[in-house]
Amino acid sequence: MELWYTQPQTDNIRFSIKVKEELFSGKSPYQQINIFDSDEMGRFLIIDGIVMLTSKDEFIYHDMIVHVPMATNPDVKKVLVIGGGDGGTVRELTRYAGIEKIDMVEIDRMVVEACQKYLPLTASKLNDKRVQLHFENGMEFVRRSKEKYDLIIVDSTDPIGPGEGLFTMEFYKCCFNLLSEDGILVNQCESPFYEKNAKEMRKAVKKIKSLFPISKVYQYNMPTYPSGHWLFGFASKKYDPIKDFKPEKWEALGLETKYYNTDVHIGSFMLPTYVRKMVENPE
Amino acid sequence: MELWYTQPQTDNIRFSIKVKEELFSGKSPYQQINIFDSDEMGRFLIIDGIVMLTSKDEFIYHDMIVHVPMATNPDVKKVLVIGGGDGGTVRELTRYAGIEKIDMVEIDRMVVEACQKYLPLTASKLNDKRVQLHFENGMEFVRRSKEKYDLIIVDSTDPIGPGEGLFTMEFYKCCFNLLSEDGILVNQCESPFYEKNAKEMRKAVKKIKSLFPISKVYQYNMPTYPSGHWLFGFASKKYDPIKDFKPEKWEALGLETKYYNTDVHIGSFMLPTYVRKMVENPE
Repeated sequence: MELWYTQPQTDNIRFSIKVKEELFSGKSPYQQINIFDSDEMGRFLIIDGIVMLTSKDEFIYHDMIVHVPMATNPDVKKVLVIGGGDGGTVRELTRYAGIEKIDMVEIDRMVVEACQKYLPLTASKLNDKRVQLHFENGMEFVRRSKEKYDLIIVDSTDPIGPGEGLFTMEFYKCCFNLLSEDGILVNQCESPFYEKNAKEMRKAVKKIKSLFPISKVYQYNMPTYPSGHWLFGFASKKYDPIKDFKPEKWEALGLETKYYNTDVHIGSFMLPTYVRKMVENPE
Repeated sequence: MELWYTQPQTDNIRFSIKVKEELFSGKSPYQQINIFDSDEMGRFLIIDGIVMLTSKDEFIYHDMIVHVPMATNPDVKKVLVIGGGDGGTVRELTRYAGIEKIDMVEIDRMVVEACQKYLPLTASKLNDKRVQLHFENGMEFVRRSKEKYDLIIVDSTDPIGPGEGLFTMEFYKCCFNLLSEDGILVNQCESPFYEKNAKEMRKAVKKIKSLFPISKVYQYNMPTYPSGHWLFGFASKKYDPIKDFKPEKWEALGLETKYYNTDVHIGSFMLPTYVRKMVENPE
């Protein structure tokens, strides 16, 4: 017997991974969660039918969501992570000795528990002393919180289902208010290639640009996401990720990374012309 | 009825495009050629079951295979293209008024004729006055030729079937000998991500590095190729694609491009750490 997981990346494009076995299947109050094992991609997490991460390429996503803002401002002390239930973002953050506190707000406890059991590769640092887990709606958390953060990372699903609120103007406004005077916001920002993803990307960019003095988009290659060309938004009150970037400061930390390096940092902001145009005119 | 084209990108990964209709199917002495039409990717060319190009993303491949070397040395006058039967590489080359002669060597006349009929988007410039088509084996052409070229572009299929000879030491040596003193070689160089592609990439890089004083690899995002993370090799006798790059010289030409720009040029050489390591130690 052959078992294949298939994701319709658009109505007309399908991506499939041959499965060795299903390790977990659960329906939480929020979403359908599956974890499979495979020869090609190792263990992988599916939420509502969509690839969230695979063991083989998650290093790319987590390197880029964490090290780009942290290398822009290595003095970050307090971090808020919205989403990121698999723990990969927190894992990379905990490598910085200078970070004192990480609040992680994940709506779905089942995601975290399933990943702790079946994806220890990403979830193993969720018990770091500096990490506080909050199982609640990210929108409600940022509306209520009175903390100040140096960095907010929105490690969300697509803007469908529980992730939808994390793409709204109100959410970005609350993030702005929770950020310190030199705070940075990084958000999962979809892709420029397929129309459906590009539309969501443009909507998010338009909102964030209207709020932050510095708003950019950076790219990376994510093999298991539709088209493989994926983006993060970088918004900031003070630091420009290129002009204020001091590669030697990050390199002095001695962190080993498989995807990120200080050249990739710079190159990731060098967008193809068609993407640059979308970001400049996101209407 | 639904018709889907499916490519096994590895033994365990499949990529599928929903097909509107088949426009062409032919078996040449060298390979099986199919052209389909689709809603998502427009018309697309399949050779021996593998995506060669789709109308939606071919601009990325052709921008990067042509404009990176041409922007490194905008004074190129004589070009040799090996492969590239779809005509996209020649199309981009013909936009440079300074190019005086383009020899294109394609083993398979049926590919060219099918593309001229069904893919005029890429094949329309093959009748440019400066272009001379040679329907023969690329290996034999470079072994025999006594010309000198400023640029050789190896726009080949994977190193299986008729493309195999274009990944050999003898082929690269012949290319070296055909290049002028400031000549540049660009070659389709597979991908770092899936093991099978990465192995071929390392083998090609190792051979080319042993011959050329300057040998680099640059990357681009190609949604319909396995993993979407694809590479070209850049080898040269004189010009470094970064140190000798004069963006303003290329910009003065006023060419409009959808993917390439002078920032992307620089960023494309900024490789992720794991790719950099493969290129530095291709054993």
